Amino acid sequence: MGLEPKKHHTWFTEYQTDSLSLGLRIEAIVAQEKTPFQDLLVVETDTYGRLLALDGAVQTTTRDEFVYHEMITHVPLFMMDAPKKVAVIGGGDGGAIREILKHPSVDEAHLVEIDSKVVEASRKFFPEISIALDDARAHVHYADGIKWVNEAKDFDLIIVDSTDPVGPAEGLFQPSFYQVIARALNDGGIMVAQSESPFLHQSLIQHMRDGLKTCFPEVKLYLAAIPTYPTGLWSFLMASKQPTRPASRVNTQEIATRYWTPQIQTQAFVLPRFVEELMG
Amino acid sequence: MGLEPKKHHTWFTEYQTDSLSLGLRIEAIVAQEKTPFQDLLVVETDTYGRLLALDGAVQTTTRDEFVYHEMITHVPLFMMDAPKKVAVIGGGDGGAIREILKHPSVDEAHLVEIDSKVVEASRKFFPEISIALDDARAHVHYADGIKWVNEAKDFDLIIVDSTDPVGPAEGLFQPSFYQVIARALNDGGIMVAQSESPFLHQSLIQHMRDGLKTCFPEVKLYLAAIPTYPTGLWSFLMASKQPTRPASRVNTQEIATRYWTPQIQTQAFVLPRFVEELMG
Repeated sequence: MGLEPKKHHTWFTEYQTDSLSLGLRIEAIVAQEKTPFQDLLVVETDTYGRLLALDGAVQTTTRDEFVYHEMITHVPLFMMDAPKKVAVIGGGDGGAIREILKHPSVDEAHLVEIDSKVVEASRKFFPEISIALDDARAHVHYADGIKWVNEAKDFDLIIVDSTDPVGPAEGLFQPSFYQVIARALNDGGIMVAQSESPFLHQSLIQHMRDGLKTCFPEVKLYLAAIPTYPTGLWSFLMASKQPTRPASRVNTQEIATRYWTPQIQTQAFVLPRFVEELMG
Repeated sequence: MGLEPKKHHTWFTEYQTDSLSLGLRIEAIVAQEKTPFQDLLVVETDTYGRLLALDGAVQTTTRDEFVYHEMITHVPLFMMDAPKKVAVIGGGDGGAIREILKHPSVDEAHLVEIDSKVVEASRKFFPEISIALDDARAHVHYADGIKWVNEAKDFDLIIVDSTDPVGPAEGLFQPSFYQVIARALNDGGIMVAQSESPFLHQSLIQHMRDGLKTCFPEVKLYLAAIPTYPTGLWSFLMASKQPTRPASRVNTQEIATRYWTPQIQTQAFVLPRFVEELMG
Protein backbone atom coordinates (compact mmCIF):
# COMPACT_ATOMS: atom_id res chain seq x y z
CA MET A 1 0.00 0.00 0.00
CA GLY A 2 1.05 3.57 -0.36
CA LEU A 3 2.56 2.59 -3.68
CA GLU A 4 3.32 5.38 -6.08
CA PRO A 5 0.98 5.01 -9.06
CA LYS A 6 2.64 4.76 -12.40
CA LYS A 7 2.52 8.02 -14.28
CA HIS A 8 0.46 8.81 -17.37
CA HIS A 9 -2.48 6.68 -16.36
CA THR A 10 -6.10 7.80 -16.46
CA TRP A 11 -8.29 7.60 -13.38
CA PHE A 12 -12.03 7.65 -12.76
CA THR A 13 -12.84 9.48 -9.55
CA GLU A 14 -16.19 9.40 -7.80
CA TYR A 15 -16.75 12.19 -5.30
CA GLN A 16 -18.93 10.09 -3.00
CA THR A 17 -19.52 13.19 -0.86
CA ASP A 18 -17.82 16.58 -1.08
CA SER A 19 -15.04 15.29 1.16
CA LEU A 20 -14.70 11.60 0.24
CA SER A 21 -13.60 10.06 -3.05
CA LEU A 22 -12.95 6.70 -4.65
CA GLY A 23 -10.30 6.59 -7.37
CA LEU A 24 -10.01 3.79 -9.91
CA ARG A 25 -7.33 3.58 -12.57
CA ILE A 26 -8.94 2.91 -15.92
CA GLU A 27 -7.78 1.21 -19.07
CA ALA A 28 -10.34 2.81 -21.37
CA ILE A 29 -13.50 4.87 -21.61
CA VAL A 30 -15.99 2.51 -23.23
CA ALA A 31 -19.02 4.80 -23.56
CA GLN A 32 -20.09 8.24 -22.48
CA GLU A 33 -23.56 9.65 -23.07
CA LYS A 34 -25.93 12.33 -21.82
CA THR A 35 -29.32 10.59 -21.59
CA PRO A 36 -32.56 12.56 -21.07
CA PHE A 37 -32.21 11.74 -17.37
CA GLN A 38 -28.55 11.57 -16.43
CA ASP A 39 -24.91 11.28 -17.49
CA LEU A 40 -24.02 7.70 -18.33
CA LEU A 41 -20.43 6.47 -18.32
CA VAL A 42 -18.92 3.04 -18.93
CA VAL A 43 -15.21 2.57 -18.19
CA GLU A 44 -12.86 -0.38 -17.98
CA THR A 45 -11.12 -0.37 -14.58
CA ASP A 46 -8.09 -2.36 -13.44
CA THR A 47 -9.50 -3.25 -10.04
CA TYR A 48 -13.20 -3.95 -10.61
CA GLY A 49 -13.48 -4.73 -14.32
CA ARG A 50 -16.10 -2.86 -16.35
CA LEU A 51 -17.94 -0.12 -14.46
CA LEU A 52 -21.22 1.73 -15.03
CA ALA A 53 -21.57 5.20 -13.51
CA LEU A 54 -24.65 7.46 -13.55
CA ASP A 55 -24.16 11.14 -12.76
CA GLY A 56 -20.64 10.27 -11.65
CA ALA A 57 -21.70 7.65 -9.08
CA VAL A 58 -20.69 3.99 -9.45
CA GLN A 59 -23.78 1.83 -10.07
CA THR A 60 -22.25 -1.51 -10.80
CA THR A 61 -19.00 -3.22 -11.77
CA THR A 62 -18.50 -6.65 -13.26
CA ARG A 63 -16.34 -7.76 -10.28
CA ASP A 64 -18.50 -6.72 -7.33
CA GLU A 65 -22.05 -6.54 -8.78
CA PHE A 66 -22.81 -10.00 -7.45
CA VAL A 67 -22.98 -8.74 -3.87
CA TYR A 68 -25.60 -6.06 -4.43
CA HIS A 69 -27.72 -8.05 -6.87
CA GLU A 70 -27.76 -11.21 -4.78
CA MET A 71 -28.46 -9.44 -1.51
CA ILE A 72 -31.25 -7.14 -2.73
CA THR A 73 -33.11 -10.16 -4.17
CA HIS A 74 -32.42 -13.48 -2.46
CA VAL A 75 -32.87 -12.20 1.10
CA PRO A 76 -36.53 -11.16 0.58
CA LEU A 77 -37.25 -14.00 -1.89
CA PHE A 78 -36.15 -16.62 0.62
CA MET A 79 -38.56 -15.12 3.18
CA MET A 80 -41.39 -16.46 0.99
CA ASP A 81 -42.27 -20.05 0.17
CA ALA A 82 -43.16 -19.56 -3.47
CA PRO A 83 -42.81 -15.98 -4.73
CA LYS A 84 -44.46 -15.58 -8.13
CA LYS A 85 -44.76 -11.91 -9.09
CA VAL A 86 -41.85 -9.54 -8.58
CA ALA A 87 -41.07 -5.97 -9.69
CA VAL A 88 -37.81 -4.07 -9.68
CA ILE A 89 -38.07 -0.26 -9.72
CA GLY A 90 -34.87 1.13 -11.22
CA GLY A 91 -32.12 -1.44 -11.64
CA GLY A 92 -31.86 -0.93 -15.39
CA ASP A 93 -28.68 -3.00 -15.58
CA GLY A 94 -30.83 -6.11 -15.15
CA GLY A 95 -28.72 -7.72 -12.42
CA ALA A 96 -31.60 -7.97 -9.93
CA ILE A 97 -33.82 -9.59 -12.59
CA ARG A 98 -31.08 -12.16 -13.30
CA GLU A 99 -31.02 -13.18 -9.62
CA ILE A 100 -34.83 -13.15 -9.22
CA LEU A 101 -35.22 -15.57 -12.12
CA LYS A 102 -33.00 -18.10 -10.36
CA HIS A 103 -36.08 -18.83 -8.21
CA PRO A 104 -38.17 -21.31 -10.22
CA SER A 105 -41.46 -20.26 -8.56
CA VAL A 106 -41.23 -16.77 -10.09
CA ASP A 107 -43.29 -16.46 -13.23
CA GLU A 108 -43.24 -12.67 -13.74
CA ALA A 109 -40.26 -10.38 -13.14
CA HIS A 110 -40.95 -6.76 -14.12
CA LEU A 111 -38.19 -4.21 -14.60
CA VAL A 112 -39.43 -0.62 -14.39
CA GLU A 113 -36.66 1.72 -15.50
CA ILE A 114 -37.22 5.37 -16.32
CA ASP A 115 -34.13 5.61 -18.52
CA SER A 116 -34.08 3.25 -21.51
CA LYS A 117 -30.48 4.23 -22.20
CA VAL A 118 -29.37 2.42 -19.02
CA VAL A 119 -30.94 -0.82 -20.22
CA GLU A 120 -29.48 -0.34 -23.70
CA ALA A 121 -26.00 0.26 -22.26
CA SER A 122 -26.29 -2.80 -20.04
CA ARG A 123 -27.41 -5.02 -22.94
CA LYS A 124 -24.49 -3.77 -25.01
CA PHE A 125 -21.67 -3.50 -22.47
CA PHE A 126 -22.69 -5.77 -19.57
CA PRO A 127 -24.09 -8.92 -21.20
CA GLU A 128 -23.40 -11.07 -18.11
CA ILE A 129 -25.48 -8.70 -15.97
CA SER A 130 -28.35 -8.04 -18.41
CA ILE A 131 -28.54 -11.62 -19.70
CA ALA A 132 -31.87 -12.50 -18.06
CA LEU A 133 -33.72 -9.56 -19.64
CA ASP A 134 -34.32 -11.85 -22.62
CA ASP A 135 -35.95 -14.51 -20.43
CA ALA A 136 -39.63 -15.05 -21.29
CA ARG A 137 -40.58 -14.29 -17.67
CA ALA A 138 -38.84 -10.85 -17.75
CA HIS A 139 -40.87 -7.77 -18.72
CA VAL A 140 -39.10 -4.47 -19.28
CA HIS A 141 -41.13 -1.24 -18.86
CA TYR A 142 -39.67 2.19 -19.60
CA ALA A 143 -41.76 4.17 -17.20
CA ASP A 144 -41.80 6.36 -14.15
CA GLY A 145 -41.62 3.92 -11.23
CA ILE A 146 -44.17 5.75 -9.07
CA LYS A 147 -46.80 5.88 -11.84
CA TRP A 148 -46.18 2.26 -12.78
CA VAL A 149 -46.50 0.93 -9.22
CA ASN A 150 -49.69 2.99 -8.86
CA GLU A 151 -51.31 0.69 -11.45
CA ALA A 152 -49.73 -2.52 -10.13
CA LYS A 153 -51.37 -5.05 -7.83
CA ASP A 154 -50.96 -8.40 -6.15
CA PHE A 155 -47.15 -8.42 -6.14
CA ASP A 156 -45.20 -10.72 -3.84
CA LEU A 157 -42.12 -8.52 -3.86
CA ILE A 158 -41.27 -5.00 -4.98
CA ILE A 159 -37.60 -4.02 -4.97
CA VAL A 160 -36.54 -0.38 -5.08
CA ASP A 161 -33.17 -0.65 -6.82
CA SER A 162 -32.61 3.07 -7.15
CA THR A 163 -29.73 5.45 -7.62
CA ASP A 164 -28.89 7.83 -4.79
CA PRO A 165 -31.63 10.15 -3.44
CA VAL A 166 -30.64 13.06 -5.70
CA GLY A 167 -31.62 13.39 -9.36
CA PRO A 168 -34.14 11.07 -11.03
CA ALA A 169 -34.52 8.73 -8.02
CA GLU A 170 -35.51 11.42 -5.51
CA GLY A 171 -39.22 10.51 -5.50
CA LEU A 172 -38.40 6.87 -4.78
CA PHE A 173 -37.25 7.88 -1.29
CA GLN A 174 -40.54 9.63 -0.37
CA PRO A 175 -42.93 8.08 2.18
CA SER A 176 -45.84 8.69 -0.25
CA PHE A 177 -44.21 6.16 -2.59
CA TYR A 178 -44.18 3.55 0.18
CA GLN A 179 -47.98 3.89 0.45
CA VAL A 180 -48.25 3.20 -3.28
CA ILE A 181 -46.02 0.14 -2.94
CA ALA A 182 -47.98 -1.17 0.05
CA ARG A 183 -51.18 -1.08 -2.05
CA ALA A 184 -49.46 -2.95 -4.90
CA LEU A 185 -48.35 -5.83 -2.66
CA ASN A 186 -50.48 -8.81 -1.69
CA ASP A 187 -51.06 -9.59 1.98
CA GLY A 188 -47.85 -11.59 2.38
CA GLY A 189 -45.92 -9.09 0.25
CA ILE A 190 -42.52 -7.61 0.98
CA MET A 191 -40.71 -4.51 -0.23
CA VAL A 192 -36.97 -3.91 -0.13
CA ALA A 193 -35.14 -0.66 -0.86
CA GLN A 194 -31.43 0.03 -1.01
CA SER A 195 -30.82 2.50 1.82
CA GLU A 196 -27.24 3.71 1.46
CA SER A 197 -24.39 3.47 4.01
CA PRO A 198 -24.93 3.27 7.77
CA PHE A 199 -21.57 5.01 8.25
CA LEU A 200 -22.51 8.05 6.12
CA HIS A 201 -26.27 8.29 5.63
CA GLN A 202 -27.70 7.79 9.09
CA SER A 203 -30.43 10.41 8.92
CA LEU A 204 -31.57 9.15 5.50
CA ILE A 205 -31.88 5.61 6.89
CA GLN A 206 -33.90 6.87 9.85
CA HIS A 207 -36.12 8.97 7.58
CA MET A 208 -36.78 5.98 5.31
CA ARG A 209 -37.46 3.72 8.32
CA ASP A 210 -39.94 6.23 9.75
CA GLY A 211 -41.70 6.53 6.40
CA LEU A 212 -41.89 2.76 5.98
CA LYS A 213 -43.27 2.31 9.51
CA THR A 214 -46.30 4.42 8.63
CA CYS A 215 -47.20 1.86 5.91
CA PHE A 216 -45.85 -1.49 7.14
CA PRO A 217 -46.02 -3.16 10.55
CA GLU A 218 -42.59 -4.76 10.17
CA VAL A 219 -39.43 -2.89 9.06
CA LYS A 220 -35.96 -4.46 9.25
CA LEU A 221 -32.48 -3.48 8.11
CA TYR A 222 -29.83 -5.76 6.72
CA LEU A 223 -26.28 -5.23 5.48
CA ALA A 224 -23.83 -6.34 2.82
CA ALA A 225 -20.21 -5.49 1.94
CA ILE A 226 -19.98 -3.67 -1.41
CA PRO A 227 -16.49 -2.31 -2.09
CA THR A 228 -17.39 0.23 -4.80
CA TYR A 229 -20.13 1.95 -2.77
CA PRO A 230 -19.22 4.66 -0.23
CA THR A 231 -17.62 3.16 2.94
CA GLY A 232 -17.98 -0.39 1.55
CA LEU A 233 -20.89 -1.21 3.87
CA TRP A 234 -24.37 -0.97 2.37
CA SER A 235 -27.83 -1.24 3.90
CA PHE A 236 -31.21 -2.48 2.71
CA LEU A 237 -34.55 -1.73 4.36
CA MET A 238 -37.11 -4.51 4.18
CA ALA A 239 -40.76 -3.86 5.01
CA SER A 240 -43.68 -6.25 5.10
CA LYS A 241 -47.39 -6.32 5.86
CA GLN A 242 -47.11 -9.50 7.90
CA PRO A 243 -44.26 -10.63 10.17
CA THR A 244 -41.57 -12.33 8.11
CA ARG A 245 -40.08 -15.64 9.16
CA PRO A 246 -36.96 -17.56 8.21
CA ALA A 247 -37.88 -19.50 5.10
CA SER A 248 -37.78 -23.26 5.31
CA ARG A 249 -36.56 -23.67 1.76
CA VAL A 250 -33.16 -21.99 2.26
CA ASN A 251 -31.50 -25.32 2.86
CA THR A 252 -33.38 -27.29 0.24
CA GLN A 253 -33.23 -25.06 -2.82
CA GLU A 254 -29.89 -24.74 -4.56
CA ILE A 255 -29.23 -21.27 -5.95
CA ALA A 256 -25.90 -20.49 -7.60
CA THR A 257 -24.47 -17.54 -5.69
CA ARG A 258 -21.12 -15.98 -4.84
CA TYR A 259 -22.08 -13.96 -1.73
CA TRP A 260 -25.44 -15.22 -0.43
CA THR A 261 -25.58 -18.48 1.53
CA PRO A 262 -28.30 -19.88 3.81
CA GLN A 263 -26.22 -18.64 6.77
CA ILE A 264 -25.77 -15.16 5.24
CA GLN A 265 -29.60 -14.99 4.98
CA THR A 266 -29.69 -14.77 8.79
CA GLN A 267 -26.32 -13.11 9.40
CA ALA A 268 -27.14 -10.07 7.27
CA PHE A 269 -29.73 -8.96 9.86
CA VAL A 270 -27.25 -9.08 12.76
CA LEU A 271 -26.22 -5.44 13.11
CA PRO A 272 -23.16 -3.82 14.65
CA ARG A 273 -24.15 -1.98 17.82
CA PHE A 274 -24.02 1.50 16.27
CA VAL A 275 -26.41 0.37 13.51
CA GLU A 276 -28.71 -1.33 16.03
CA GLU A 277 -28.84 1.95 17.94
CA LEU A 278 -29.50 3.87 14.74
CA MET A 279 -32.51 1.64 14.06
CA GLY A 280 -33.73 2.13 17.65
CA MET B 1 -23.03 11.72 -4.57
CA GLY B 2 -21.14 12.88 -7.62
CA LEU B 3 -20.98 16.35 -6.07
CA GLU B 4 -18.35 18.67 -7.38
CA PRO B 5 -15.86 19.26 -4.56
CA LYS B 6 -15.38 22.88 -3.56
CA LYS B 7 -12.20 24.28 -4.98
CA HIS B 8 -9.05 25.17 -3.06
CA HIS B 9 -9.38 22.34 -0.60
CA THR B 10 -6.57 19.98 0.34
CA TRP B 11 -6.99 16.25 0.05
CA PHE B 12 -5.17 13.27 1.51
CA THR B 13 -5.01 10.41 -0.99
CA GLU B 14 -4.04 6.86 -0.16
CA TYR B 15 -3.05 4.75 -3.13
CA GLN B 16 -4.36 1.49 -1.67
CA THR B 17 -2.98 -0.36 -4.68
CA ASP B 18 -1.50 1.07 -7.87
CA SER B 19 -5.01 1.27 -9.36
CA LEU B 20 -7.25 2.05 -6.36
CA SER B 21 -7.31 5.15 -4.18
CA LEU B 22 -9.19 6.65 -1.25
CA GLY B 23 -9.42 10.43 -1.13
CA LEU B 24 -10.27 12.41 1.99
CA ARG B 25 -10.63 16.17 2.14
CA ILE B 26 -8.58 17.50 5.02
CA GLU B 27 -8.86 20.56 7.21
CA ALA B 28 -5.25 20.55 8.38
CA ILE B 29 -1.99 18.65 8.50
CA VAL B 30 -1.43 18.05 12.21
CA ALA B 31 1.97 16.34 12.16
CA GLN B 32 4.37 14.92 9.62
CA GLU B 33 7.55 13.07 10.56
CA LYS B 34 10.07 10.63 9.15
CA THR B 35 10.68 8.10 11.92
CA PRO B 36 13.57 5.59 11.79
CA PHE B 37 11.03 3.07 10.43
CA GLN B 38 8.42 4.88 8.34
CA ASP B 39 6.73 8.11 7.31
CA LEU B 40 4.20 9.20 9.93
CA LEU B 41 1.37 11.60 9.08
CA VAL B 42 -1.51 12.94 11.17
CA VAL B 43 -4.25 14.89 9.38
CA GLU B 44 -7.66 16.23 10.31
CA THR B 45 -10.24 14.92 7.83
CA ASP B 46 -13.83 16.06 7.28
CA THR B 47 -15.28 12.57 6.98
CA TYR B 48 -13.44 10.47 9.55
CA GLY B 49 -12.01 12.98 12.03
CA ARG B 50 -8.33 12.75 12.90
CA LEU B 51 -6.35 10.21 10.89
CA LEU B 52 -2.99 8.46 11.37
CA ALA B 53 -1.17 7.24 8.25
CA LEU B 54 2.09 5.27 8.11
CA ASP B 55 3.95 5.15 4.80
CA GLY B 56 0.86 6.69 3.20
CA ALA B 57 -1.56 3.99 4.40
CA VAL B 58 -4.44 4.81 6.77
CA GLN B 59 -3.88 3.10 10.14
CA THR B 60 -6.67 4.55 12.20
CA THR B 61 -9.17 7.41 12.36
CA THR B 62 -11.07 8.73 15.34
CA ARG B 63 -14.45 7.96 13.69
CA ASP B 64 -13.97 4.37 12.55
CA GLU B 65 -11.17 3.03 14.82
CA PHE B 66 -13.73 1.40 17.08
CA VAL B 67 -14.51 -1.31 14.51
CA TYR B 68 -10.95 -2.57 14.07
CA HIS B 69 -9.95 -2.29 17.73
CA GLU B 70 -13.09 -3.97 19.06
CA MET B 71 -13.06 -6.77 16.52
CA ILE B 72 -9.36 -7.70 16.76
CA THR B 73 -9.68 -8.01 20.57
CA HIS B 74 -13.16 -8.92 21.83
CA VAL B 75 -13.74 -11.78 19.39
CA PRO B 76 -10.76 -13.85 20.65
CA LEU B 77 -11.09 -12.63 24.26
CA PHE B 78 -14.69 -13.83 24.44
CA MET B 79 -13.56 -17.28 23.27
CA MET B 80 -11.86 -17.67 26.66
CA ASP B 81 -13.40 -17.79 30.09
CA ALA B 82 -10.86 -15.70 31.94
CA PRO B 83 -7.99 -14.41 29.74
CA LYS B 84 -5.17 -13.02 31.90
CA LYS B 85 -2.05 -12.38 29.83
CA VAL B 86 -2.30 -10.70 26.43
CA ALA B 87 0.23 -9.22 23.98
CA VAL B 88 -0.29 -6.93 21.00
CA ILE B 89 2.46 -6.94 18.37
CA GLY B 90 2.36 -3.60 16.55
CA GLY B 91 -0.73 -1.54 17.32
CA GLY B 92 1.28 1.42 18.60
CA ASP B 93 -1.80 3.64 18.68
CA GLY B 94 -2.93 1.75 21.80
CA GLY B 95 -6.51 1.12 20.65
CA ALA B 96 -6.28 -2.66 21.00
CA ILE B 97 -4.87 -2.29 24.55
CA ARG B 98 -7.80 -0.01 25.46
CA GLU B 99 -10.28 -2.70 24.39
CA ILE B 100 -8.35 -5.58 26.01
CA LEU B 101 -8.37 -3.82 29.37
CA LYS B 102 -12.18 -3.69 29.31
CA HIS B 103 -11.98 -7.40 30.29
CA PRO B 104 -11.55 -7.44 34.07
CA SER B 105 -9.82 -10.85 34.09
CA VAL B 106 -6.83 -9.43 32.16
CA ASP B 107 -3.97 -8.51 34.44
CA GLU B 108 -1.18 -7.97 31.89
CA ALA B 109 -1.57 -6.30 28.48
CA HIS B 110 1.74 -5.91 26.64
CA LEU B 111 2.18 -3.60 23.68
CA VAL B 112 5.22 -4.47 21.53
CA GLU B 113 5.80 -1.68 19.03
CA ILE B 114 9.00 -1.33 17.02
CA ASP B 115 8.48 2.41 16.41
CA SER B 116 8.29 4.55 19.56
CA LYS B 117 7.29 7.54 17.44
CA VAL B 118 3.92 5.89 16.70
CA VAL B 119 3.17 5.58 20.41
CA GLU B 120 4.34 9.15 21.03
CA ALA B 121 2.12 10.47 18.23
CA SER B 122 -0.86 8.55 19.54
CA ARG B 123 -0.36 9.82 23.09
CA LYS B 124 -0.13 13.37 21.78
CA PHE B 125 -2.73 13.43 18.99
CA PHE B 126 -5.11 10.52 19.75
CA PRO B 127 -5.68 10.66 23.53
CA GLU B 128 -9.00 8.78 23.27
CA ILE B 129 -7.27 5.89 21.49
CA SER B 130 -4.06 5.75 23.57
CA ILE B 131 -5.77 6.43 26.92
CA ALA B 132 -5.30 2.93 28.37
CA LEU B 133 -1.51 2.94 27.87
CA ASP B 134 -1.31 4.64 31.28
CA ASP B 135 -3.26 1.82 32.95
CA ALA B 136 -1.16 -0.05 35.54
CA ARG B 137 -1.86 -3.34 33.67
CA ALA B 138 -0.46 -1.97 30.37
CA HIS B 139 3.22 -2.51 29.56
CA VAL B 140 4.77 -0.79 26.55
CA HIS B 141 7.88 -2.35 24.96
CA TYR B 142 9.76 -0.69 22.11
CA ALA B 143 11.11 -3.81 20.51
CA ASP B 144 11.15 -6.00 17.44
CA GLY B 145 7.99 -8.10 17.73
CA ILE B 146 9.63 -11.34 16.57
CA LYS B 147 12.49 -11.09 19.07
CA TRP B 148 10.13 -10.11 21.89
CA VAL B 149 7.72 -12.99 21.30
CA ASN B 150 10.72 -15.34 21.15
CA GLU B 151 11.31 -14.62 24.87
CA ALA B 152 7.60 -14.65 25.81
CA LYS B 153 5.67 -17.53 27.34
CA ASP B 154 2.37 -18.62 28.81
CA PHE B 155 0.24 -16.04 26.98
CA ASP B 156 -3.51 -16.49 26.62
CA LEU B 157 -3.72 -14.30 23.53
CA ILE B 158 -1.25 -12.77 21.09
CA ILE B 159 -2.63 -10.24 18.60
CA VAL B 160 -0.68 -9.31 15.48
CA ASP B 161 -1.90 -5.75 14.89
CA SER B 162 0.48 -5.00 12.07
CA THR B 163 0.73 -2.61 9.17
CA ASP B 164 0.50 -4.02 5.64
CA PRO B 165 2.94 -6.80 4.63
CA VAL B 166 5.45 -4.37 3.12
CA GLY B 167 8.00 -2.34 5.10
CA PRO B 168 8.63 -2.91 8.81
CA ALA B 169 5.81 -5.46 9.26
CA GLU B 170 6.96 -7.89 6.56
CA GLY B 171 8.40 -10.44 9.00
CA LEU B 172 5.12 -10.53 10.94
CA PHE B 173 3.49 -12.28 7.95
CA GLN B 174 6.05 -15.11 7.80
CA PRO B 175 5.11 -18.66 8.87
CA SER B 176 8.28 -18.81 10.97
CA PHE B 177 6.80 -16.08 13.17
CA TYR B 178 3.69 -18.19 13.74
CA GLN B 179 5.93 -20.97 15.18
CA VAL B 180 7.38 -18.45 17.61
CA ILE B 181 3.90 -17.30 18.63
CA ALA B 182 2.66 -20.87 19.09
CA ARG B 183 5.52 -21.51 21.56
CA ALA B 184 4.65 -18.31 23.49
CA LEU B 185 1.00 -19.30 23.98
CA ASN B 186 -0.31 -21.57 26.72
CA ASP B 187 -2.27 -24.69 25.80
CA GLY B 188 -5.61 -22.89 25.52
CA GLY B 189 -3.97 -19.92 23.81
CA ILE B 190 -5.19 -18.08 20.74
CA MET B 191 -3.51 -15.87 18.17
CA VAL B 192 -5.23 -13.36 15.90
CA ALA B 193 -3.68 -11.46 13.00
CA GLN B 194 -5.21 -8.81 10.77
CA SER B 195 -5.22 -10.38 7.31
CA GLU B 196 -6.23 -7.62 4.87
CA SER B 197 -9.19 -7.58 2.45
CA PRO B 198 -10.83 -10.72 1.03
CA PHE B 199 -11.75 -8.73 -2.08
CA LEU B 200 -8.15 -7.69 -2.82
CA HIS B 201 -5.66 -9.87 -0.96
CA GLN B 202 -6.85 -13.40 -1.56
CA SER B 203 -3.47 -15.03 -2.10
CA LEU B 204 -2.06 -13.34 1.01
CA ILE B 205 -4.95 -14.70 3.10
CA GLN B 206 -4.39 -18.20 1.72
CA HIS B 207 -0.64 -17.94 2.33
CA MET B 208 -1.22 -16.86 5.94
CA ARG B 209 -3.83 -19.60 6.47
CA ASP B 210 -1.42 -22.25 5.14
CA GLY B 211 1.37 -20.96 7.38
CA LEU B 212 -0.89 -20.94 10.43
CA LYS B 213 -2.12 -24.47 9.72
CA THR B 214 1.43 -25.80 10.04
CA CYS B 215 1.48 -24.53 13.66
CA PHE B 216 -2.14 -24.63 14.87
CA PRO B 217 -4.82 -27.32 14.53
CA GLU B 218 -7.64 -24.76 14.24
CA VAL B 219 -7.57 -21.74 11.90
CA LYS B 220 -10.66 -19.57 11.30
CA LEU B 221 -11.37 -16.34 9.44
CA TYR B 222 -13.74 -13.60 10.53
CA LEU B 223 -14.76 -10.28 9.03
CA ALA B 224 -15.60 -6.69 9.95
CA ALA B 225 -16.60 -3.57 8.01
CA ILE B 226 -13.90 -0.88 8.18
CA PRO B 227 -14.57 2.04 5.82
CA THR B 228 -11.06 3.50 5.69
CA TYR B 229 -9.34 0.23 4.78
CA PRO B 230 -9.22 -0.93 1.13
CA THR B 231 -12.65 -2.22 -0.05
CA GLY B 232 -14.19 -1.58 3.39
CA LEU B 233 -14.24 -5.29 4.27
CA TRP B 234 -11.42 -6.54 6.48
CA SER B 235 -10.44 -10.01 7.61
CA PHE B 236 -8.81 -11.49 10.71
CA LEU B 237 -7.25 -14.92 10.97
CA MET B 238 -7.63 -16.64 14.33
CA ALA B 239 -5.55 -19.69 15.21
CA SER B 240 -5.62 -21.85 18.32
CA LYS B 241 -3.96 -24.93 19.78
CA GLN B 242 -7.25 -26.36 20.98
CA PRO B 243 -10.68 -26.14 19.35
CA THR B 244 -12.34 -22.84 20.29
CA ARG B 245 -15.93 -22.75 21.49
CA PRO B 246 -18.53 -19.99 21.84
CA ALA B 247 -17.82 -18.40 25.21
CA SER B 248 -20.51 -18.66 27.81
CA ARG B 249 -19.81 -15.24 29.25
CA VAL B 250 -20.78 -13.22 26.14
CA ASN B 251 -24.25 -12.66 27.51
CA THR B 252 -23.27 -12.07 31.10
CA GLN B 253 -20.39 -9.64 30.89
CA GLU B 254 -21.20 -6.08 29.89
CA ILE B 255 -18.52 -4.48 27.70
CA ALA B 256 -19.05 -0.98 26.33
CA THR B 257 -18.76 -1.30 22.55
CA ARG B 258 -19.97 0.41 19.39
CA TYR B 259 -19.55 -2.46 16.89
CA TRP B 260 -19.17 -5.73 18.80
CA THR B 261 -22.25 -7.38 20.30
CA PRO B 262 -22.79 -10.97 21.53
CA GLN B 263 -24.52 -11.68 18.18
CA ILE B 264 -21.67 -10.12 16.17
CA GLN B 265 -19.32 -12.52 18.00
CA THR B 266 -20.95 -15.37 16.07
CA GLN B 267 -21.98 -13.46 12.93
CA ALA B 268 -18.42 -12.35 12.12
CA PHE B 269 -17.49 -15.96 11.30
CA VAL B 270 -20.33 -16.41 8.81
CA LEU B 271 -18.59 -15.83 5.48
CA PRO B 272 -19.93 -14.83 2.07
CA ARG B 273 -19.66 -17.75 -0.32
CA PHE B 274 -16.62 -16.38 -2.19
CA VAL B 275 -14.74 -16.03 1.12
CA GLU B 276 -15.84 -19.50 2.25
CA GLU B 277 -14.44 -20.87 -1.00
CA LEU B 278 -11.23 -18.91 -0.56
CA MET B 279 -10.75 -20.53 2.85
CA GLY B 280 -11.43 -23.99 1.36
